Amino acid sequence: MNTSELPLAPWARRLAPSAIQDMLQNITKPGVFSLALGLPAAEMFPTEGMAASAASVLAEQGSALQYSATLQPLREHIVALMAKRGVRCSPEQVFLTTGAQQGLNLLVRLMLEPGQSVMLEDRVYSGFQQVLEPYQARRLAVRTEAGTGIDLDSVESVLASGERPAFLYTMSDGHNPLGISLATEARERLVKLARDYRMPIIEDDAYGFLNYEDRVLPPLRALDEQWVYYVGSFSKILAPALRVGWVVVPEPMVFRLATVKESSDIDTATFTQRIILSFLDSGRLEGHLTRLRHEYRLRRDTLLKALEQHLPRGAKWSKPSSGMFVWVELPEGADTTALLSRALETERVAYLPGQAFTVAGGRSAAHCMRLNFSNCEPARIEEAVARLGRVLVAAQG
Amino acid sequence: MNTSELPLAPWARRLAPSAIQDMLQNITKPGVFSLALGLPAAEMFPTEGMAASAASVLAEQGSALQYSATLQPLREHIVALMAKRGVRCSPEQVFLTTGAQQGLNLLVRLMLEPGQSVMLEDRVYSGFQQVLEPYQARRLAVRTEAGTGIDLDSVESVLASGERPAFLYTMSDGHNPLGISLATEARERLVKLARDYRMPIIEDDAYGFLNYEDRVLPPLRALDEQWVYYVGSFSKILAPALRVGWVVVPEPMVFRLATVKESSDIDTATFTQRIILSFLDSGRLEGHLTRLRHEYRLRRDTLLKALEQHLPRGAKWSKPSSGMFVWVELPEGADTTALLSRALETERVAYLPGQAFTVAGGRSAAHCMRLNFSNCEPARIEEAVARLGRVLVAAQG
Repeated sequence: MNTSELPLAPWARRLAPSAIQDMLQNITKPGVFSLALGLPAAEMFPTEGMAASAASVLAEQGSALQYSATLQPLREHIVALMAKRGVRCSPEQVFLTTGAQQGLNLLVRLMLEPGQSVMLEDRVYSGFQQVLEPYQARRLAVRTEAGTGIDLDSVESVLASGERPAFLYTMSDGHNPLGISLATEARERLVKLARDYRMPIIEDDAYGFLNYEDRVLPPLRALDEQWVYYVGSFSKILAPALRVGWVVVPEPMVFRLATVKESSDIDTATFTQRIILSFLDSGRLEGHLTRLRHEYRLRRDTLLKALEQHLPRGAKWSKPSSGMFVWVELPEGADTTALLSRALETERVAYLPGQAFTVAGGRSAAHCMRLNFSNCEPARIEEAVARLGRVLVAAQG
Repeated sequence: MNTSELPLAPWARRLAPSAIQDMLQNITKPGVFSLALGLPAAEMFPTEGMAASAASVLAEQGSALQYSATLQPLREHIVALMAKRGVRCSPEQVFLTTGAQQGLNLLVRLMLEPGQSVMLEDRVYSGFQQVLEPYQARRLAVRTEAGTGIDLDSVESVLASGERPAFLYTMSDGHNPLGISLATEARERLVKLARDYRMPIIEDDAYGFLNYEDRVLPPLRALDEQWVYYVGSFSKILAPALRVGWVVVPEPMVFRLATVKESSDIDTATFTQRIILSFLDSGRLEGHLTRLRHEYRLRRDTLLKALEQHLPRGAKWSKPSSGMFVWVELPEGADTTALLSRALETERVAYLPGQAFTVAGGRSAAHCMRLNFSNCEPARIEEAVARLGRVLVAAQG
């Protein structure tokens, strides 16, 4: 069948099989040393605990597999988790979602009118740009730096020029793709800008619980409960295939989220929500998080040390205190998109090119790459970076 | 916080906590004899098989909880299931979703341009109207009858008048709320109309595998693979809280579905998809379906017999060969919406008023009600109908 005969809305007709999907096929081939994807370490999943929880849920709860209302005790656990991030909220402000991605999607559906503008950093999680796809939203891209994060002078000057975006999307900890966490003053100034200009912030905190230093700052939501819409997830701290996340929002948003979720995939307590509730009830999360932070800290340090050792002069990179990613900037003129095929062919090593994270595919990050440190074991990280170093040195020479 | 201060798109601002949600709270109170909701029987869930599958998935598959690509073997099982419904398709035409509801949602996102019209029956699954909510779609409601289903003369005259809806949404088996399954000739004529007028059909077959008579007709998709977009689900044949469904579509739709699903909730093989795959691999579905059909047939027959016995003269109802629902029409002038509170107060019995299923809440079904027969055990169905009969007799007197 010819695509032109498909009954599609015009924007859907323009969709093409993504170049990234093609690239992913190469990246995920067996034998490739991949620092490319944002995958947690599967060998760290609390599989036994999950198995025990699944078994007990099925044995003890007659209606575990039935449609049923939202799990109040799970929302109470999330309130306690949020308190550990320094956020005060009530169970009535917590709404459960199919992972953080659905949280982002539902918030955008409720908040964004077609034709309105939105504010984004010019290095941004590509999955968020996908959420915007059907809305034809004008994208106000503001500068962001691997060392300090979102450029607040840019934010202020865009707002002062009279722009009124539907919201700003940002990550204050373990930024994807930069790895940066904002300083205290930056958090305070950003929230003040949101208040002064009445601009909502969608704060994506998917990585906020993965922090590796003694000093952890509370997210933006801790500074303002009216203008900050918080999105969290169990994908990175328990496991992605459970598909459970949450949002923390002003209470009058919750029934609206329930309405759009019901039309999206039925607002029902899922089996995996019950497994997570049982796992949290068993008190096993704290120990699991401690082990996870320990291991990921080790992997981050291994990556940073290997970069020092193997990357050619002129390369710079972020030193993340949270999350899963390091952002590498090669000297201007380097082309990491073109280099990726060579890296795969000659050294079987993979990363994601900076261009995957720019607004509307712009070339401003053509000399950058994102490296992941959560997925591979330390020895494999070392080997991957040695290979990457050889590719980069060869390209310079 | 005042709702007027929330940063909402205009359509989202207008959302109100639904009257149905309020009603559901009363309906689901303990002690109520409820024939209201479309719930499967929780005591029939294959809980032990699910527990065995969950345990084996976690014990044997190291990456069961990781992000990972769609499960080809599960799509192959679905091809085999579809063959039992008389549908020929390939695994490349099958796309896995978070329940049938997400299948509907994703198809509508791809197919419907804001401002376009859509064709619906004037008794229609309320969850589909929710899917349409953000699009401001003009709704072309066509007549539908409890005895024969969608009125094809109406469909044809709307199309002949020059209307070109983005699609027609319909159910050919176990219609929700009517309980009707279309006759062979109606299926053929409907598909011919779709072809002649180049109008896609979204066929919701959530109930198609729950059939109770020897003669089962293939769904519309068996008659046309270009114009019929098929939506199926494990919610009613295995369990809803697993949240796994599928669509069968022309192959060039699949990467587009993957793109919008990725932006909705990440297109990843979920833990519950793996559980279902393991359950299907174990060969237990066929026996489970046989038991389910046997039990639901018994419950249907119990309901139909009790209606004969207890409903006052003048009431008529459908005799479903598939699905979970019987549609009751009282004499014109009856008001089932008003009657529901009395039914709950005096007899603690519940149903869904016809008005919940009309297009845009119209009053054309004010004298109708939907009764479910899958959720309650036979003795409870008898008691519920005896109670309902007393309410209706009292209302007539």
